[in-house]
Amino acid sequence: MQVAVLGGGSFGTAIASIAADNGADVRQWLRDEALVEQINREHRNGRYLPDYSINPAVVASTDLAETVTEAAVVFIAIPSKAFRTVLQQVRPYLRPEQILVSTTKGIEADGFKLMSQVIEEETGSSHIGALSGPNLAAEIAQKHLTATVIASDDPVTRAYVQAALGCSYFRVYAGNDRYGAELGGSLKNIYAIAAGMAAALGMGENTRSMLMTRALAEMSRFAVALGANPMTFLGLSGVGDLIVTCSSELSRNYRVGYALGQGHDLESAIEVLGQVAEGVNTVKLVCEKARREDIYMPLAQGLYQVMFGGVPAKDMAKALMESEQSSDVEFMLSREAVSRAHELAPDSE
Amino acid sequence: MQVAVLGGGSFGTAIASIAADNGADVRQWLRDEALVEQINREHRNGRYLPDYSINPAVVASTDLAETVTEAAVVFIAIPSKAFRTVLQQVRPYLRPEQILVSTTKGIEADGFKLMSQVIEEETGSSHIGALSGPNLAAEIAQKHLTATVIASDDPVTRAYVQAALGCSYFRVYAGNDRYGAELGGSLKNIYAIAAGMAAALGMGENTRSMLMTRALAEMSRFAVALGANPMTFLGLSGVGDLIVTCSSELSRNYRVGYALGQGHDLESAIEVLGQVAEGVNTVKLVCEKARREDIYMPLAQGLYQVMFGGVPAKDMAKALMESEQSSDVEFMLSREAVSRAHELAPDSE
Repeated sequence: MQVAVLGGGSFGTAIASIAADNGADVRQWLRDEALVEQINREHRNGRYLPDYSINPAVVASTDLAETVTEAAVVFIAIPSKAFRTVLQQVRPYLRPEQILVSTTKGIEADGFKLMSQVIEEETGSSHIGALSGPNLAAEIAQKHLTATVIASDDPVTRAYVQAALGCSYFRVYAGNDRYGAELGGSLKNIYAIAAGMAAALGMGENTRSMLMTRALAEMSRFAVALGANPMTFLGLSGVGDLIVTCSSELSRNYRVGYALGQGHDLESAIEVLGQVAEGVNTVKLVCEKARREDIYMPLAQGLYQVMFGGVPAKDMAKALMESEQSSDVEFMLSREAVSRAHELAPDSE
Repeated sequence: MQVAVLGGGSFGTAIASIAADNGADVRQWLRDEALVEQINREHRNGRYLPDYSINPAVVASTDLAETVTEAAVVFIAIPSKAFRTVLQQVRPYLRPEQILVSTTKGIEADGFKLMSQVIEEETGSSHIGALSGPNLAAEIAQKHLTATVIASDDPVTRAYVQAALGCSYFRVYAGNDRYGAELGGSLKNIYAIAAGMAAALGMGENTRSMLMTRALAEMSRFAVALGANPMTFLGLSGVGDLIVTCSSELSRNYRVGYALGQGHDLESAIEVLGQVAEGVNTVKLVCEKARREDIYMPLAQGLYQVMFGGVPAKDMAKALMESEQSSDVEFMLSREAVSRAHELAPDSE
């Protein structure tokens, strides 16, 4: 099988090398000529994954046409801001039977588009998938046992990606809710900020677990309102990715949240960190979308108030604690039913 | 509202005091006269929750009849081995309109009964609930923000328990899948052992998150086969409790798993620990049940092989890694469909 990988970041590099380990003939496209040279000569990506030995069968190139022409599967691992542009560049060289898989988590601000939707718009392909899951690239590089999901409504796409990447340390599970899997990958960044904030406020394991579970309720509520399947959030791209992201205390999202929890405002939290975390933008985009679509997201809206409304983190945590006691899983028992039933019981006094 | 709590362990004590904080008139039944005396005089449970100040309005007693007669809600926080016996003792004093809530996680070996099923069998009540969630008693005692689920198909039961216990630091969410919520509380102990084992084998965050997600797939598969709703596992009694349990490195289950991962056999793992962990029994009961009912549970069966079949933990981990790449969330995409589709793709070479 011939496999193409577009992008020379840490995840694209790891994916290319896994496919080569698996016996595929792999081409990797990058813009940076020096990095192409280094990958081909030293089998190393000094810029994004310096301690990793790339399988020597990976051939890097700056030539898009050459990279994709013969590929059965094309993985697109390009940052969300450049994603559409690169697709437009590669489009003339693609064939309808090729499988196109996004590995990028992100939301295009204009129109709230996810990356596989961008592929759909730009190519009209019927073999589109999204790869998502609890996949820290640095751990994949160390060949730590890792699982991911190939989400696609196309069984051919799922089967090819399982064959191209699945090996003893990288396990590829199949899902059919592409939109839900991709949304999970983007939304989790919001709750990684919340987890950092909770840690700074001295909250314990009960609270951390509550926060993650209520985050899952909120993520799936949002996704379902936009047409996804809530069950997706039981899987690797939902709860799996949420667990790994909220546990990565070194991640930018977590650290921004921690600084906010210590009482910094957003500007000084970003200053402490030295760069903007992905989740900051996600909070903004998702809260605006939720407001337009009238979706109830108390955690995300609370974070928005702390980040952009000047509300202290401590006060926000308190306000959230005093909100109504509602349904655990509202796809089974509606929030309205729980709310109505409150009058069945007396006040406790 | 009058509230009764049967049992003087750490969770029963915390629940009694929360209800009293909330303004309820609380009676707590215990067998141990000295402890009753201590609770009533010092407002302290020196045996099970020594550093906690119990609300002085909690009145402890060794008299079952006096404890329950006037109660609107009776919480039963008795260890699973004595649960049925205590219920048989209290049965003569119960009235049909009283709400009976189990807070005990455990499976009765004989007939694979959960505690709220024992209540049902012994009382025939139509107001039965189960309380379950990520609830470390020691953290509740420190008034860390905590969330739980009252699971019952009876809206009156849900509303009364939310009114009796819900306060700013203890949030009570409602669920309608009593059996699923209770099963989650028992099954998670299996995967806490697995988490300990994975840690001893040096696995990273990707693996930990994969393990928890696949555990969730397996728990919900088992529960659904026995009539529960898979959605329950998205909530506090499913993923919530799983997260807190797999993160408690001091828990007995985690430590037994850690010792097994280091290469100890079960006997010496238990010796290292000085006591048997709940999960050891659960693995046995659940694997036997799964075999009888033909439910696919590779993680639990793998643990069983390590614990009772003499297979080294390292070899088992390797075998699990080489199992078939299947469906992420099988309630959406069946394992059979994924398996059939494998022939759509060529081998990667």
